[in-house]
Amino acid sequence: MKAFAMLKIGEAGWIEKDVPACGPMDAICRPLAVAVCTSDIHTVYEGAIGERSNLILGHECCAVVTEVGSLVKDFKAGDRVLVPAITPDWNSLEAQGGYAMHSGGMLAGWKFSNIKDGVFAEYFHVNDADGNLAYLPDSINTVNACMLSDMVPTGFHGAELADVQFGDTVLVVGIGPVGLMSVAGASLRGASRIIAVGTRPACVEAAKKYGATDFISYKNGSIEEQTLKLTSGKGVDCVIIAGGDEDTFTSAVKCVKPGGKIGSVNYLGGADFVKIPRVEWGVGMGHKMINGGLMPGGRLRMEKLGSLVASGRVDVSHLCTHVFEGWDSLTEAVRLMKEKPVDLIKAIVKISEN
Amino acid sequence: MKAFAMLKIGEAGWIEKDVPACGPMDAICRPLAVAVCTSDIHTVYEGAIGERSNLILGHECCAVVTEVGSLVKDFKAGDRVLVPAITPDWNSLEAQGGYAMHSGGMLAGWKFSNIKDGVFAEYFHVNDADGNLAYLPDSINTVNACMLSDMVPTGFHGAELADVQFGDTVLVVGIGPVGLMSVAGASLRGASRIIAVGTRPACVEAAKKYGATDFISYKNGSIEEQTLKLTSGKGVDCVIIAGGDEDTFTSAVKCVKPGGKIGSVNYLGGADFVKIPRVEWGVGMGHKMINGGLMPGGRLRMEKLGSLVASGRVDVSHLCTHVFEGWDSLTEAVRLMKEKPVDLIKAIVKISEN
Amino acid sequence: MKAFAMLKIGEAGWIEKDVPACGPMDAICRPLAVAVCTSDIHTVYEGAIGERSNLILGHECCAVVTEVGSLVKDFKAGDRVLVPAITPDWNSLEAQGGYAMHSGGMLAGWKFSNIKDGVFAEYFHVNDADGNLAYLPDSINTVNACMLSDMVPTGFHGAELADVQFGDTVLVVGIGPVGLMSVAGASLRGASRIIAVGTRPACVEAAKKYGATDFISYKNGSIEEQTLKLTSGKGVDCVIIAGGDEDTFTSAVKCVKPGGKIGSVNYLGGADFVKIPRVEWGVGMGHKMINGGLMPGGRLRMEKLGSLVASGRVDVSHLCTHVFEGWDSLTEAVRLMKEKPVDLIKAIVKISEN
Amino acid sequence: MKAFAMLKIGEAGWIEKDVPACGPMDAICRPLAVAVCTSDIHTVYEGAIGERSNLILGHECCAVVTEVGSLVKDFKAGDRVLVPAITPDWNSLEAQGGYAMHSGGMLAGWKFSNIKDGVFAEYFHVNDADGNLAYLPDSINTVNACMLSDMVPTGFHGAELADVQFGDTVLVVGIGPVGLMSVAGASLRGASRIIAVGTRPACVEAAKKYGATDFISYKNGSIEEQTLKLTSGKGVDCVIIAGGDEDTFTSAVKCVKPGGKIGSVNYLGGADFVKIPRVEWGVGMGHKMINGGLMPGGRLRMEKLGSLVASGRVDVSHLCTHVFEGWDSLTEAVRLMKEKPVDLIKAIVKISEN
Repeated sequence: MKAFAMLKIGEAGWIEKDVPACGPMDAICRPLAVAVCTSDIHTVYEGAIGERSNLILGHECCAVVTEVGSLVKDFKAGDRVLVPAITPDWNSLEAQGGYAMHSGGMLAGWKFSNIKDGVFAEYFHVNDADGNLAYLPDSINTVNACMLSDMVPTGFHGAELADVQFGDTVLVVGIGPVGLMSVAGASLRGASRIIAVGTRPACVEAAKKYGATDFISYKNGSIEEQTLKLTSGKGVDCVIIAGGDEDTFTSAVKCVKPGGKIGSVNYLGGADFVKIPRVEWGVGMGHKMINGGLMPGGRLRMEKLGSLVASGRVDVSHLCTHVFEGWDSLTEAVRLMKEKPVDLIKAIVKISEN
Repeated sequence: MKAFAMLKIGEAGWIEKDVPACGPMDAICRPLAVAVCTSDIHTVYEGAIGERSNLILGHECCAVVTEVGSLVKDFKAGDRVLVPAITPDWNSLEAQGGYAMHSGGMLAGWKFSNIKDGVFAEYFHVNDADGNLAYLPDSINTVNACMLSDMVPTGFHGAELADVQFGDTVLVVGIGPVGLMSVAGASLRGASRIIAVGTRPACVEAAKKYGATDFISYKNGSIEEQTLKLTSGKGVDCVIIAGGDEDTFTSAVKCVKPGGKIGSVNYLGGADFVKIPRVEWGVGMGHKMINGGLMPGGRLRMEKLGSLVASGRVDVSHLCTHVFEGWDSLTEAVRLMKEKPVDLIKAIVKISEN
Repeated sequence: MKAFAMLKIGEAGWIEKDVPACGPMDAICRPLAVAVCTSDIHTVYEGAIGERSNLILGHECCAVVTEVGSLVKDFKAGDRVLVPAITPDWNSLEAQGGYAMHSGGMLAGWKFSNIKDGVFAEYFHVNDADGNLAYLPDSINTVNACMLSDMVPTGFHGAELADVQFGDTVLVVGIGPVGLMSVAGASLRGASRIIAVGTRPACVEAAKKYGATDFISYKNGSIEEQTLKLTSGKGVDCVIIAGGDEDTFTSAVKCVKPGGKIGSVNYLGGADFVKIPRVEWGVGMGHKMINGGLMPGGRLRMEKLGSLVASGRVDVSHLCTHVFEGWDSLTEAVRLMKEKPVDLIKAIVKISEN
Repeated sequence: MKAFAMLKIGEAGWIEKDVPACGPMDAICRPLAVAVCTSDIHTVYEGAIGERSNLILGHECCAVVTEVGSLVKDFKAGDRVLVPAITPDWNSLEAQGGYAMHSGGMLAGWKFSNIKDGVFAEYFHVNDADGNLAYLPDSINTVNACMLSDMVPTGFHGAELADVQFGDTVLVVGIGPVGLMSVAGASLRGASRIIAVGTRPACVEAAKKYGATDFISYKNGSIEEQTLKLTSGKGVDCVIIAGGDEDTFTSAVKCVKPGGKIGSVNYLGGADFVKIPRVEWGVGMGHKMINGGLMPGGRLRMEKLGSLVASGRVDVSHLCTHVFEGWDSLTEAVRLMKEKPVDLIKAIVKISEN
């Protein structure tokens, strides 16, 4: 089959590969639409997961099932499905302990285009089909459905980690597609005020639609100066980190109130250390909680978040700025996500309606 | 009245000061016994809270009430009381939000020997007597009662922040008096295995009594090497930080499993930044939660923890290695806590039985 | 002063009473607008809190401060304020334990028109002004502000007790004003689907605006039959009880999934027992959590929920169907709340703009 | 193979049955020791799960693996294992939502001697071996190991549901083997005072060893009268229900403080309704949380609780009052559990050392 793969660090392209085999609990699927993630760019052009050869890229898509294993009970060939980027081994100790995304080891619930081939191929393999696929609701089109693989669950997890409560003031750092979904998630959990950090006009416009009430630009001074000014020196109840780098945590600690929570869903690829400022962290005793986590994946998560999109509670279409048709345009979609033109949020490629 | 005070950074001694005035919700108390805290040493000899002049030291004691304000309902002169180191303003926004120790500002629930005069005096002032004092149970002697001001609530808070659950493996860094109470707290919350980091023989002996099952010495390699070896490479479920410095967090992150929790109750007085190692923190997505917090204070906390000591569930007497009698010996007790002889855990001074 | 009071069970009317005295932590306030609560009706006409004589009614209002006690720091005469129905004693053991609404005894945080005189008077008394009042945001008019005393915090507490999460299906029983705010609260915490039980057209229309997606009528069969039918037999994730009676819990248990949560904010005034159906409760082991609770009150709660109204996240004006002007119309407003004409949701009386 | 089965309601005995077949994720095991549970008695003699014919009984044992399926990674023939009574389908929606014990439907994680044959046979089948078995630590003998199937996890779950915190006063209703483990669990989570309801001398003695501090007898008046007297009218922080019947909840609500929690792990087999007393439940608003739940099962749970027994933190041997040898004595063990002689806590049958 034809597949778009990382050839080596710095290079990606089309290759031929065998159709994957289907184990007894697994499914083989054919993409209906795929989306390119910044992680794909990190993987190829920054070597984020190390050197790989002919690793098929992609972990955002919706699909149709073409084959299921003998133990699969709930899905059959022909079913249209949502596909989460994270597909845990549900009987692992980590999953039993509530952290399925780390099943088999830290981050190891992330299998597509990491531990095994991804979804940018005519066919792809899904481990534990009953546990990891969800039916694609009729009311969600294939383009929007791709946003449920990673953008919605990752962005919303930021709001969960930051534990947003009714009436909170929330700082969201970064308003790329994940950050926008963190804005939407914070709003959907009852934030009163959402201060968003970002400047790209397309993103600012989308952020307003998702509930951002105030905006901060890196260009106008430090995040903490601007945030404290906007909050009369009180700081915010929660910070969601969906962009920036290791130093962003320094700002976050300075912005959050004692007892406040910082939740990060951002991939950190740079410095050796995240730096927590000692004094503003209350000399270690300020109850400024810091956590960061990979999105929860699997079927229940897809069903729950899918229902939010299907019911119209979240309109993911604002993310889908660049929509292409056909596998041939995938190269262009990848190029766009790499170069990030000013009007881009996400690039999606429609493959087939059925 | 006579009081033992910080004269300036680097110097402490006896001074004369007026007996404090009692507001309508407040109490004036006379110590029955006092204990010296490492924080007193930090305050005087490291300038931990900045320059101060004639600030009465001390925040660990039990006492007898000598006067109460007109609005006090539950206490009267003559009552013997437990006194928490942290005495919040309970109607503050922070207290209403669950973080009373930060009432009025980060760490501002800590008033004794910080925002106002401490307890090393013939008389001291307690804000909100009904909210912050607790009756001293008859079965607790005055020496042991001093351990309830700070050592028990701070150490136990480490176990709360690290969210110890049935059967967990817990790493406790530091086995000074607070760390020992973290060991006891972890044990009392159901840990199976408690790996303690520390070497002083008196502390190691006490740690065994409180439930430590394994010991690590800084001298035998890094904490992470030893911890991972002891756990067959799996790491621990929880880390309680009750000693060390900013770099201890680097080790803690390396030791804890994905989904594990790090709770710190240690005062950090050194480097500008606490450093979180990017890779072992799961490039930001490992769900290794980091929190640090000042002990919860106030009356309910004193009653609950007091009941654990009164019922014999926790034997704090193992901490009380050096017990003196009379105000005159306080200088010697302070000197001991500064010099930390090998057999010292805590120095307590009995003032009066009634 | 003039005041509208419960004269005895079954009778209410205007009386003369002294202006209340102001303690050192307290405030005296003058209402800007008041709203009548179903609880006022229960109090007078059902004897819900027992026999009372000349007890001033009312616990929903916004106000202007006319006097403050000597220890009050944050408010002064002339301040316009939000007033919560529940005004806890914040230093009580219950408040320290996280249940301020039960400060001093079960439900004893409810003081207005219960333990002391209410707000239907020219002046009323507020205990602990700093802890229980909040500034009235300029962008909230006095009519809408009354909804923040009880309707918003009580309704939203239902969503908190039922622990609504992203994508949940939620059953809300009762769509009077509290139930409508439970619908809004469930929506604001991320529910995908909200099944509302109720039939009055004005309430159904408002419920749609607040996010209800499906409606059930008592007239079309049992709640459980209809709910299970709507959910293909799966049941709901959460139930919020904001109406009905003791038997409503029987339905709720039948409707909720194992692991689901039932949160009630409904006053129960009838049968001796709430009945939990043994079999559908999993013979005691189905993890169908049942809780019911009085709204959290106090200043922080008012500030947080006030910010949701001020920012436009919640539009309480849909509740305010009957707005009157002047104390003279209060009798009529009470009559309406008693008789519940078909188009009534809440009756509010504007007293003064300043 | 030979197996001890329910023949019909009211009758149990030995039958011949085929050795079960092993699916790709499963294991076949041979018991090393088995214990009889009161549930076995309910099943046969009270028809608790309905009419059954030739259903092999038993869900408490430890075992040796004799065969594993092709997908099993962590176990092999010859491994000695702990076996939980509850063996969930870990990829089910319920398990993904945190309620694995209800995988596939309420209580359906309970498979042994319910949905499929139990462990009272020469061989038995375990679904999802990797997810549901745990290695038997060398330091736990086979008799004690049987207590980890159900008694420890069920009893401890009571302490989890009741959310016992440091210094709490806890009421434990029922001190049969499960209730004794609830006492131990409450103690191990930091309770100061544990009031146990029960009178059988063997159980009272064991309860003292597990941490009970006060005892109440049904014979001396109602539970609530005695509990309120013991607590000076204040009530308890938590109630764990591990015995009694539907009416026990009425007492529990009367005993618990506002904001307190009632956790039940008791099978209810009698009346149609559990009755919650309206007034003492705060007319629906007292924040007296009521929950009841089947024990969490699976491998992680067995490993965690097994580590508590292996490390000596919990001594389950006090439960093992009647130990027999050989399959032939199983009939007698069952008879004892049915008749409950005064000195019985649990009856265990050792089958083989290897």
